[in-house]
Amino acid sequence: MSSSQPVAANPGSRNLEATVSVGSFHRVRFGRDYLSPSNPAFPELFVPGVDGPVKALFVLDESLRKAWPALEESIHACCDTHKDRFRVTDILTIPGGERCKNDTGSLDIILGAIEKRGICRQSYVIAMGGGALLDVAGYAASIAHRGVRLIRFPTTTLSQADSGVGVKNGINRFGKKNFLGSFDVPAAVLNDETYLTTLSDRDWRAGFSEAVKVALIKDQAFFEEIENLSEEIEGRNLETLNPIIQRSAELHFKHIVEGGDPYELTVARPLDFGHWAAHKIEQMSDFSVLHGEAVAIGVALDTIYSAVMGHLSWEDADRVCRCLSKMGFSLSHEVLKDRETLFEGIEEFRQHLGGELAVTLLKGIGEGFTCHEIELAKMGEALERLEEV
Amino acid sequence: MSSSQPVAANPGSRNLEATVSVGSFHRVRFGRDYLSPSNPAFPELFVPGVDGPVKALFVLDESLRKAWPALEESIHACCDTHKDRFRVTDILTIPGGERCKNDTGSLDIILGAIEKRGICRQSYVIAMGGGALLDVAGYAASIAHRGVRLIRFPTTTLSQADSGVGVKNGINRFGKKNFLGSFDVPAAVLNDETYLTTLSDRDWRAGFSEAVKVALIKDQAFFEEIENLSEEIEGRNLETLNPIIQRSAELHFKHIVEGGDPYELTVARPLDFGHWAAHKIEQMSDFSVLHGEAVAIGVALDTIYSAVMGHLSWEDADRVCRCLSKMGFSLSHEVLKDRETLFEGIEEFRQHLGGELAVTLLKGIGEGFTCHEIELAKMGEALERLEEV
Repeated sequence: MSSSQPVAANPGSRNLEATVSVGSFHRVRFGRDYLSPSNPAFPELFVPGVDGPVKALFVLDESLRKAWPALEESIHACCDTHKDRFRVTDILTIPGGERCKNDTGSLDIILGAIEKRGICRQSYVIAMGGGALLDVAGYAASIAHRGVRLIRFPTTTLSQADSGVGVKNGINRFGKKNFLGSFDVPAAVLNDETYLTTLSDRDWRAGFSEAVKVALIKDQAFFEEIENLSEEIEGRNLETLNPIIQRSAELHFKHIVEGGDPYELTVARPLDFGHWAAHKIEQMSDFSVLHGEAVAIGVALDTIYSAVMGHLSWEDADRVCRCLSKMGFSLSHEVLKDRETLFEGIEEFRQHLGGELAVTLLKGIGEGFTCHEIELAKMGEALERLEEV
Repeated sequence: MSSSQPVAANPGSRNLEATVSVGSFHRVRFGRDYLSPSNPAFPELFVPGVDGPVKALFVLDESLRKAWPALEESIHACCDTHKDRFRVTDILTIPGGERCKNDTGSLDIILGAIEKRGICRQSYVIAMGGGALLDVAGYAASIAHRGVRLIRFPTTTLSQADSGVGVKNGINRFGKKNFLGSFDVPAAVLNDETYLTTLSDRDWRAGFSEAVKVALIKDQAFFEEIENLSEEIEGRNLETLNPIIQRSAELHFKHIVEGGDPYELTVARPLDFGHWAAHKIEQMSDFSVLHGEAVAIGVALDTIYSAVMGHLSWEDADRVCRCLSKMGFSLSHEVLKDRETLFEGIEEFRQHLGGELAVTLLKGIGEGFTCHEIELAKMGEALERLEEV
């Protein structure tokens, strides 16, 4: 389609053509106590300027801050020890959860602080919290001055296992999830297991559905590992369960850096397995269903649909549903009864991705594939089967 | 700073590290009558989907639409001939000029249409107009669905010679120019000389200051070419003068694709020569001074300052001012008397770039260099000399 030949109807025309390449270094670290003054990993991320330490604006998830009353103190203590590297300009607290993305209130608070504190393109925004908080803080960092540096500090199982290690930011608009957003590689992602210990049981569990999702489309052995531990999720033993979060993060990371299309310029988007329904269920439940809980339902639904369509054995589909149930996920919800509204999620998903519909289905455990059509009657059947699980 | 070694304080920690590369094809075309149904260059840009023609949302600059009453008709005629390639979903008209960037009114109109018309990541926004209109429409395209495709159709000398061929989008906020924005490579830029014929004399002239700017920092021979034609600007002969616009666009294009830092992740930003003052003059005059007019003053000021500091000969500084004056630019303005406010522009410029101050000065015609400090007393002297020009 592109050509360096002059266009016939423009005899005097000239063309300039070239590829613009932008490379960014993406790094995810797994560890604990990153804010401890004796741990150099966090302060080492800051690149001091010629004028000395760089500015750092912290954005904290309200629920994190409540669970860790000494968090601000820890941040200041870390900064005191490493004051040659960074300087805390402000510590904001934002109510997290999907609602912080539904209007521009939280975004405006962060942008206002960036302006007021003179945060520049060489300064850092450090976002600590769940996926929604990271989404909105990352979006603010991405658009302010056309991009200030961002350190993601995911503190939930879901954000550590999935969205936090990615390159997407966004807020909701027109009632549509992530209608506004950006792709941007953060300066670093720190997965600190310390903060997982204070999550509510619901928040703790929620992240493991994304691990199931990525295992189902990419890694059979990983699914089996999760399956074997499915009844241990509620026990919350970090030593046993953190490897699941780390492996999930690693598969997401690899998909981004090795998948050839980190900014999703083509259509296929296998990491969104189960997500057309998940996004719609969140919206239909007015976000009372957590993203990870909705993903569990969406994954179960598209797994069963894969079986209804003959791509997957019923045995495998049952295994998947059983695993999710054993992990403590409820696979039913009253909003599923309003099929008409639920199915609008398919078109919304298509529009958000763009172009032809591309939904990931399973042809085996660990084997996702892209499908360009959903038969609504068959999806209705899948919904009926899901009710019986 | 980055390391793949485990961090000492985190004996069990793991790191994932990799470079994320994103490549985009940047193309700028120079020609005329791109909307003529017989000219294939514009319709060929659209990549039809499997479902047929892609959706195209047009955003027109109000002054362009007034100057070309048949423009909508031309768009529809072009689409009728090439209906296998694209489908017009809507034609919006937005008042252009810097004011369209000062609040979210225009942005919201464009985002609303993107939502209402189901514009997706495989659809196109076509922005036709001056630099400010391209900035806001480009920003909308960049954040909607994390990026829909953008075709830039700059219709002013300034946008064709400078900003339109670049990769920046943005709107103003907190009274700061381009406080919000993004870097994004458009799908294509079409510089159509047809539309230059109906510009007002002020708008026509305004773009040539950016040509002077880029010539001064990069290309002595080009400056001499402009100098030789400086008194012909007002004659508006396209055959004589369009090569200046094209050469300016080419130097900007090369800076982006060959300069090694298209998204300005490092500090040096030589294309912003004269711009710290220009941005502030625009703001202080409540945008009654056009961007190109302000650039002429800013370029003259930093050229004289280069001479005051002993980097440039007074002979060369005088040549530059004479050239700008002959082109019809006024190099004085009452806002220059308020030096205190004007000089705030230096810090605002630093903050917007980030990190250490980096101002481009001249050590010869065609030879820019980066300087990290401005001596205000000397800049005051430069202002006094500017008054005498």
